[in-house]
Amino acid sequence: MAHTLRHDAEIMIERIISENMPQRSVQQALEGHTFHGNIYYIAIGKAAWTMAKAASDFLGDSIVAGLVITKYDHAQGEIPRTEIIEAGHPISDQNTLLGAEKAIALAEKLGEGDELLFLVSGGGSALFEALKPGITLDDLVALNSQLLACGADIVEINAVRKRFSRVKAGRFAEIAAPARVFSVVLSDVLGDRLDSIASGPVAPDRATVEDVQKIVSTYDIKLTDIQKQYLLEETPKATPNVTTIITGNVRSLCQSAASAAIELGYTPLILTTTLHCEAREAGRFFASIAAEIQTGTGPVAKPCAIIAGGETVVTLKGKGKGGRNQELALSAAKGISGLDSTLLFSLGSDGTDGPTDAAGGLVDGQTLKTLREQGLDFDKLLADNDAYHALEATDGLIFTGPTGTNVNDVSVLLCR
Amino acid sequence: MAHTLRHDAEIMIERIISENMPQRSVQQALEGHTFHGNIYYIAIGKAAWTMAKAASDFLGDSIVAGLVITKYDHAQGEIPRTEIIEAGHPISDQNTLLGAEKAIALAEKLGEGDELLFLVSGGGSALFEALKPGITLDDLVALNSQLLACGADIVEINAVRKRFSRVKAGRFAEIAAPARVFSVVLSDVLGDRLDSIASGPVAPDRATVEDVQKIVSTYDIKLTDIQKQYLLEETPKATPNVTTIITGNVRSLCQSAASAAIELGYTPLILTTTLHCEAREAGRFFASIAAEIQTGTGPVAKPCAIIAGGETVVTLKGKGKGGRNQELALSAAKGISGLDSTLLFSLGSDGTDGPTDAAGGLVDGQTLKTLREQGLDFDKLLADNDAYHALEATDGLIFTGPTGTNVNDVSVLLCR
Repeated sequence: MAHTLRHDAEIMIERIISENMPQRSVQQALEGHTFHGNIYYIAIGKAAWTMAKAASDFLGDSIVAGLVITKYDHAQGEIPRTEIIEAGHPISDQNTLLGAEKAIALAEKLGEGDELLFLVSGGGSALFEALKPGITLDDLVALNSQLLACGADIVEINAVRKRFSRVKAGRFAEIAAPARVFSVVLSDVLGDRLDSIASGPVAPDRATVEDVQKIVSTYDIKLTDIQKQYLLEETPKATPNVTTIITGNVRSLCQSAASAAIELGYTPLILTTTLHCEAREAGRFFASIAAEIQTGTGPVAKPCAIIAGGETVVTLKGKGKGGRNQELALSAAKGISGLDSTLLFSLGSDGTDGPTDAAGGLVDGQTLKTLREQGLDFDKLLADNDAYHALEATDGLIFTGPTGTNVNDVSVLLCR
Repeated sequence: MAHTLRHDAEIMIERIISENMPQRSVQQALEGHTFHGNIYYIAIGKAAWTMAKAASDFLGDSIVAGLVITKYDHAQGEIPRTEIIEAGHPISDQNTLLGAEKAIALAEKLGEGDELLFLVSGGGSALFEALKPGITLDDLVALNSQLLACGADIVEINAVRKRFSRVKAGRFAEIAAPARVFSVVLSDVLGDRLDSIASGPVAPDRATVEDVQKIVSTYDIKLTDIQKQYLLEETPKATPNVTTIITGNVRSLCQSAASAAIELGYTPLILTTTLHCEAREAGRFFASIAAEIQTGTGPVAKPCAIIAGGETVVTLKGKGKGGRNQELALSAAKGISGLDSTLLFSLGSDGTDGPTDAAGGLVDGQTLKTLREQGLDFDKLLADNDAYHALEATDGLIFTGPTGTNVNDVSVLLCR
């Protein structure tokens, strides 16, 4: 039975990823758009290469020149007339700055007769960055660590970071002006807030000076004097030269999970596509639902698949290795321990969960026992945010490699 | 619309409590039991008075003598041939010790021809206590604070505490022997573990010396030397003179919520009856579900009631006033902020949530705005575990007074 469950989970994972690759949706977006003048394009984010390839395949020779900025190991080959830069994620590096300088150079050249196709995907916040004078990459890395560690969510992190940037928060749209910008967006942000996805290089910034001051004070973020000064400069509140279309998001990810569940004989129930609580507590909530289902009094009868999409957070307390999906899954292992025919998996659609080579984690009713048999201590591993090693020891890591898409995370509880 | 929602919530709360009062279920338990010899009875816990009154009304003159030990303000009058002691909860006090000494004196007198009716309800862990030599009430209070603050769940807290007790973990059954004991239990523990409800005075203790050592080490609990010694003494693993029946629990609480929802025109969905994660994160999870429902893509169509029963935990970090239900509700307020026709309430069936006079909390899509208008800061109040004052300012406290029952908590999300 457990074998069947695992087999079903593997089929679902494959389906979820393959149905959410951006090729088709990018093509549809381009089919519905009429370009004016010379077409240039820039693609940023974890799905940049895949999106760029789709655009290049569709637009062919009508593209004058292009630039792809993506994460290391995410480019899958050359694309005609296109320069490809790989850079650091989630920590920005020198290549991040190099890529953005090239993008700025390209955008500055554009005139009224040109149009810029701007392909945006998640990860762009780290991968696309040009800093204001007096801000260094080290400053930014330190600030990012501070924000991540204190439990701020991605919207809050980006709202602060973008204040120190020359290309975020709509500022890149200003650089490209007077050229028109057509922005095609693959969303990895809950609620699809355009100013949050990749920190919105061509989207008006919703956060005000006041909002950002509030975040800094809530989480007690330490800033340098020059950082404090930049916090007082307002960001663009309109980008009139930009047209935007969203081509994929976490809802489609959940719908793929639901479709796959039906085909495998499970009744699907999508709880939410905006899950955003602490990863380990989401895992415990899932485990409580699993226990109820196995008692026969759950929200839906077995066999069933309980699905939640979103982006949980991890408040780092330990020094272990993991990601939010791995931590959610590991945490659930305690509550489902001993339950037959119960499996939970959680994965990031981009294939890289946290700073690890795994896409997520998978646990079942035997995981805790297996862990114990190997002399490993569940509570200690979880307390140390070390889900990777716990899951590694229980054959619970999901590996997909970089997928080429990035529409956030999905967690699925399977009960037979 | 918000007015209707609030009105519906109030009707539901009234129904949930009234349907879970123990009178009828205690009577049913007694009808199904044949007593042998002289009947004595002892009732402990937050529902002790209500259960005792039901027993006295049913058994009448066949009772020789009785004792009720309950929380302050929970007795509602005299009961024939019954002594009533009120004591401290959640912090034990001198009356706790006094009550237990009286119970021990009564139980020690019993012989083979006697039968002890033992009415057990939640809260008994704090309300019924006789300490081993060398352990003081202050030790216990300190230990309890330590355990509560570190986020240990109630099963873990009780497993440790009962090691220092002369009446818990089955030891009271040994004192009553050779008399028979008929134990009628109103459960406030998820999964109805008999050794956890009121710390199981007449139930075999499932936790071993090894288990308890594990808990102490996981949460890094500081113990005195004599406490460390007592941790090595094993507890009773059988109580052959005891028969037990469970007469109510959190599932019936959730079912009452579901029935009331149906009558009010909401489609109910019970997610779980074993919710046990961090209160504020459960609130955020609920809010994510609410957002999905209002988008029209939730797990069930509007109007609906999403229900979860259980006992969440609060890891204390601040110095504010509140309880787990108030904190769950307040936390949800952020995620549902701005949503129309969305209300969430969470309440403890005993009517006292944490060390407050409120039974729980209630929030809707306007709560955050109201809070802001009053110059109060949501994030700061939540960070300070000060849900009581936040809810007080937004008319979001639920007051029922001590209810006379105690079958844990229920949280209900209403969407129209």
